[in-house]
Amino acid sequence: VPLPERKLISGVRREVQRAPSGRGSLAAGIGDDCALLRVPPRHQILVTTDFTLEGVHFRREWHPPRSVGHRCLARGLSDIAAMGGEPVAAFLSLALPAKLPQKWVDDFMGGLLVLAKQFGVPLAGGDTASSPAGIMADIVVVGALPRGEAVLRSTARPGDLVFVSGALGGSAAALQLLYAGKRLDPRSYPAHFFPAPRIEVARRLRRAEIVTSMIDLSDGLSTDLRHICEESRVGAEISAQSIPQAKFRDGAVELDLALHGGEDYELLFTARPGTRVPRSVAGVPITHVGRITRGRKIVLLPENGSRSELESRGWEHFRSTR
Amino acid sequence: VPLPERKLISGVRREVQRAPSGRGSLAAGIGDDCALLRVPPRHQILVTTDFTLEGVHFRREWHPPRSVGHRCLARGLSDIAAMGGEPVAAFLSLALPAKLPQKWVDDFMGGLLVLAKQFGVPLAGGDTASSPAGIMADIVVVGALPRGEAVLRSTARPGDLVFVSGALGGSAAALQLLYAGKRLDPRSYPAHFFPAPRIEVARRLRRAEIVTSMIDLSDGLSTDLRHICEESRVGAEISAQSIPQAKFRDGAVELDLALHGGEDYELLFTARPGTRVPRSVAGVPITHVGRITRGRKIVLLPENGSRSELESRGWEHFRSTR
Repeated sequence: VPLPERKLISGVRREVQRAPSGRGSLAAGIGDDCALLRVPPRHQILVTTDFTLEGVHFRREWHPPRSVGHRCLARGLSDIAAMGGEPVAAFLSLALPAKLPQKWVDDFMGGLLVLAKQFGVPLAGGDTASSPAGIMADIVVVGALPRGEAVLRSTARPGDLVFVSGALGGSAAALQLLYAGKRLDPRSYPAHFFPAPRIEVARRLRRAEIVTSMIDLSDGLSTDLRHICEESRVGAEISAQSIPQAKFRDGAVELDLALHGGEDYELLFTARPGTRVPRSVAGVPITHVGRITRGRKIVLLPENGSRSELESRGWEHFRSTR
Repeated sequence: VPLPERKLISGVRREVQRAPSGRGSLAAGIGDDCALLRVPPRHQILVTTDFTLEGVHFRREWHPPRSVGHRCLARGLSDIAAMGGEPVAAFLSLALPAKLPQKWVDDFMGGLLVLAKQFGVPLAGGDTASSPAGIMADIVVVGALPRGEAVLRSTARPGDLVFVSGALGGSAAALQLLYAGKRLDPRSYPAHFFPAPRIEVARRLRRAEIVTSMIDLSDGLSTDLRHICEESRVGAEISAQSIPQAKFRDGAVELDLALHGGEDYELLFTARPGTRVPRSVAGVPITHVGRITRGRKIVLLPENGSRSELESRGWEHFRSTR
C-alpha cells in the first residue's frame, strides 16, 4: 500500500471529523461501515456518480491537481443542480498510481475540498486503492429536495420557452488552446479549470416554480438539448443569434463552441410561455434561446439563411492518451 | 468509445426500467441527471462505496466474471448489513479496457444483477468509461433505516459479549489454494466466490434490539474486532476454541485463517451480557466468541497455553499483478 493512500485517508478522515456532527446532514462518517446521513422530513434523495479519469477527463500535463479536484466534484454538484436539489454529502473513490507524488494528491484534495466547503457539502467517505495505470476518481454526490419537486428532463412541453444560464463555450475554447499546445494559466480560464456548479440558480428556479424541465450543460447545448427533447418526446427551435457566447480573450468564442462545446456546467431549462423569467438569477444571466416544438426535430434558426437541423455533436472527452 | 460501454449502458438502463417505478424506492433512474430515491418517513440514509479493482480484489484468471460481479455488490450490501440497514439502491461505475470481451461484461453484470434481484435492490445508475489498464468497478449502495437505529462500531461497552455469524476463514482458504496455483470450481467454494451478505441477519438483530455494536467481517476477525475496539475505546478477549472455523474439504480451515482471513462477510457484533442471543438468526448460526474488556488490548485465550495479544494481521488483498 503506497503512502499516498494512507495520507489521503487521514486527510479525508480529518475533513469528516470537522463536519458538524450534532447538526447538519452527516450523522456519522468515515470510521464506520457506512456514512449515515440525515435528510429533512418529506424529502427525496438524489444520487449521482461520475468518473474522472486521467487521459479521458483530464491530462496531468494540462490540468493542475487543484483544477482536477475542483472539476471532479463540480461534475457531481452540477448534476444535483440539474434536478433543482441541494447537495447533502460527497463520497470520493480514488485509485492512484504508486508513483504519484504526495503533493499532487494533496493539491487535488485541496481543490476538491475548497469547492465542497463553498457549497457546505461534507466529504463523508469513499475508498482508496492503488491504480495500475493512471489516476481514477469516482465522485458520488447525494442530494435532497422536497418530495415531488425534482425537475426532470422528461417534462418539457410544446410551446415552452428554452433558456440557458451564463455564457457558453468558454470551457471548450480553453480546451482547444490546450489541444493546440498552448500552456494556459488556469486562473485566466476559470470556465474550464474551475467551473461553478449552478446549485443556487437551480434552487431559486425550482422554488419559484419557473422551470418545467432542466439539465446541466455538461455535454454541450446541442447534445443536452437533445437529451431533454428525447426524454420529453418533443422537438426544439434554437435561435443562433440568441446563444450567449462566452467572452474569450478580446472577443467571444465561436458559435460552434457555444453550441457544441461541453463542460460549461451551466443550466438549460424550459418554462411555460406566460412565466416571468428573470434576466438574472443569483447574479447569473439567464438568456432565452428558443422554444420547444411538437415533433422530434431540433432546428437551428441562423441569423441569416435557412433553418437547418441542429446536429448533436456529442461532447468527446479527450481522446485517451494511452 | 468501445462497444462494451454502450451495451453495458443499455443493459443497465433496461434493468433500471424494469424496476417498479410507481412504488418502491426508485422514483426516477438512468435517463436523468440523478437517480431520485424515495425513503420511508423518519428514516436515515446509509451510503457506502467500494472499489473492485483487477489485480487488487480479483484476478481474471482466478475469478469468473459472475463471481466478480457478485462480490462487487456483496461488498456494498455487507456494509449496509453492518449498520443494520436495508438496501435501497445500487450504483455501478465501471471502467473497462477496450479489448475486454463483451461476454465478460455480460457475465459480470449477470452476477451482480442476480444478487441485486435477490435483495430487491434496483441498479439505479452509474457511469462507464474506458480504462487504460485493467477492470475497475466502484459500487455505491444506498440504504436506509429508522432514525436513531443505526448500529455503529463505536458503541461496544466493557462487559458486552462478542458474537460472530456463520463460519470464518472459508474465503481465505480458497484464496490460499488459488495462490498455490490450484484451479477451483467456483460452485464448490461459495464462501469465496459467492459470499452471502448478512442483510437479514443484521436486520433481525437490530430490530430485536440485541446488538450494542456491529461490523462486517471484510478484513478478518482480528482486524475488524480492532476496528470495533478502537472506535469504542475498549479491549476484548477472544476464546480460540470458540471460533467457528469454516468447513473446508474434509475438515475445517486452520485457526489462523478463521482469525485473520478476510472477505467472509459475516457479522461481528456485541450484546449486553443479560441479553438472550439466539443460536441462529435467519438460518445462520450465531457463536459467542469472547467479551469486551476495559483497557485497549485484544487478547486471544488459547485452548491450551497462555493468553497472548491478538495481532491484527490486516487483510491484504491480492498483491498487484502489475
